[in-house]
Amino acid sequence: MANNMQIIFNKDERATLYKVLAARRDMRHFIQGASVPNDVMDRLFEAAHLAPSVGLMQPWRFISIQNEQLRKDIARLVDEEISNTASEIGVRKNDFLKLKLEGIRTCAQLVAVVLAPDDGTLLGRRTLPLETALCSVACAIENMWLAARVENIGLGWVSLFDPQKLGAALHCPKDALPIALLCIGPVHEFYEKPMLVQEGWRDEKPLAGILFENRWPIEGEAK
Amino acid sequence: MANNMQIIFNKDERATLYKVLAARRDMRHFIQGASVPNDVMDRLFEAAHLAPSVGLMQPWRFISIQNEQLRKDIARLVDEEISNTASEIGVRKNDFLKLKLEGIRTCAQLVAVVLAPDDGTLLGRRTLPLETALCSVACAIENMWLAARVENIGLGWVSLFDPQKLGAALHCPKDALPIALLCIGPVHEFYEKPMLVQEGWRDEKPLAGILFENRWPIEGEAK
Repeated sequence: MANNMQIIFNKDERATLYKVLAARRDMRHFIQGASVPNDVMDRLFEAAHLAPSVGLMQPWRFISIQNEQLRKDIARLVDEEISNTASEIGVRKNDFLKLKLEGIRTCAQLVAVVLAPDDGTLLGRRTLPLETALCSVACAIENMWLAARVENIGLGWVSLFDPQKLGAALHCPKDALPIALLCIGPVHEFYEKPMLVQEGWRDEKPLAGILFENRWPIEGEAK
Repeated sequence: MANNMQIIFNKDERATLYKVLAARRDMRHFIQGASVPNDVMDRLFEAAHLAPSVGLMQPWRFISIQNEQLRKDIARLVDEEISNTASEIGVRKNDFLKLKLEGIRTCAQLVAVVLAPDDGTLLGRRTLPLETALCSVACAIENMWLAARVENIGLGWVSLFDPQKLGAALHCPKDALPIALLCIGPVHEFYEKPMLVQEGWRDEKPLAGILFENRWPIEGEAK
């Protein structure tokens, strides 16, 4: 990858990044039986590994699921959590159960992302140790997500699982924390809008509602 | 922003994204007295707001610091935390204190990022409620970081602060969590390598060390 850090990006390159950010979607519908070339997967992991991390701890670990029985076991863990959520979600249970929430069985590649056991890094983490480590892992996943989009393949982040059970299935140490199941693979099409918007589950917030000046807004003043 | 979701990205666009990912740096050295045009800041916030979020909760809130006294107060909170870390960091204290860890006073724009109080979203969050919300905020920050790089300006994520004290300075509700201070602005140059590598504080991990198959590696087997 480019090593000249003093690159000045031009207007076209800016437009490309903004196009990628807008075209990224959380995908759940994959083309069954499709595959992802190894060199594409390599580039996705390299993209992830370029992420920032607090104190340079690089706490992200990626477990590529190649064993078919293991994938089935993981799919069952996700089914179980969907069912647990359904029984807690209340009046919207039927709408919830109509949503397609994962593509574990049909995606070309399944990757578990795990927060590594704490390596004791103190720099930048004294007051927010778990939070900063998690944020680093999330930045790596977002990099990978954007990379998948420019490779024209879908990626979906599934967080519907019991982390202890998933950790056990992956033989993770007790102090590691599985944080994501990434479903990756070719898709028929990308959702026009976030799938939860498209399905009428929820609306997006306007930008004005998340942007404040100098202080949290006084109650009633929030846009 | 582009709304045709079925865009097929080409080779040049792929190369652009990978170039941006590789050129992003966590910046601490800014050009004092420089400014960032409003339209650039607008694009950074729009980029952040395009991030994925679990259950579409969009829990990120951005507080732009325009008041100079408030910026000074925040700078003092960061100084205090650097001093607290120094007294805990042990034998590397002198090396630690030589590092430039923030650009709060010199950056053109200072933005605090706050995790909003929990809105009760259950979808995808039953087993990992705080973790998934934090990860969503981190994805928004990573989007903003990449946007800053294509705008040819620096961004540094400072996490050296007491979140309670920062929250109080920003009048945040008690159940909101400040997670980042973003220093944003023009820089003389981008670091060739992550600053902590450049300064000999720490080395980066090889990609092989974070990539496993089917399971966490058996002890002694980890690459």
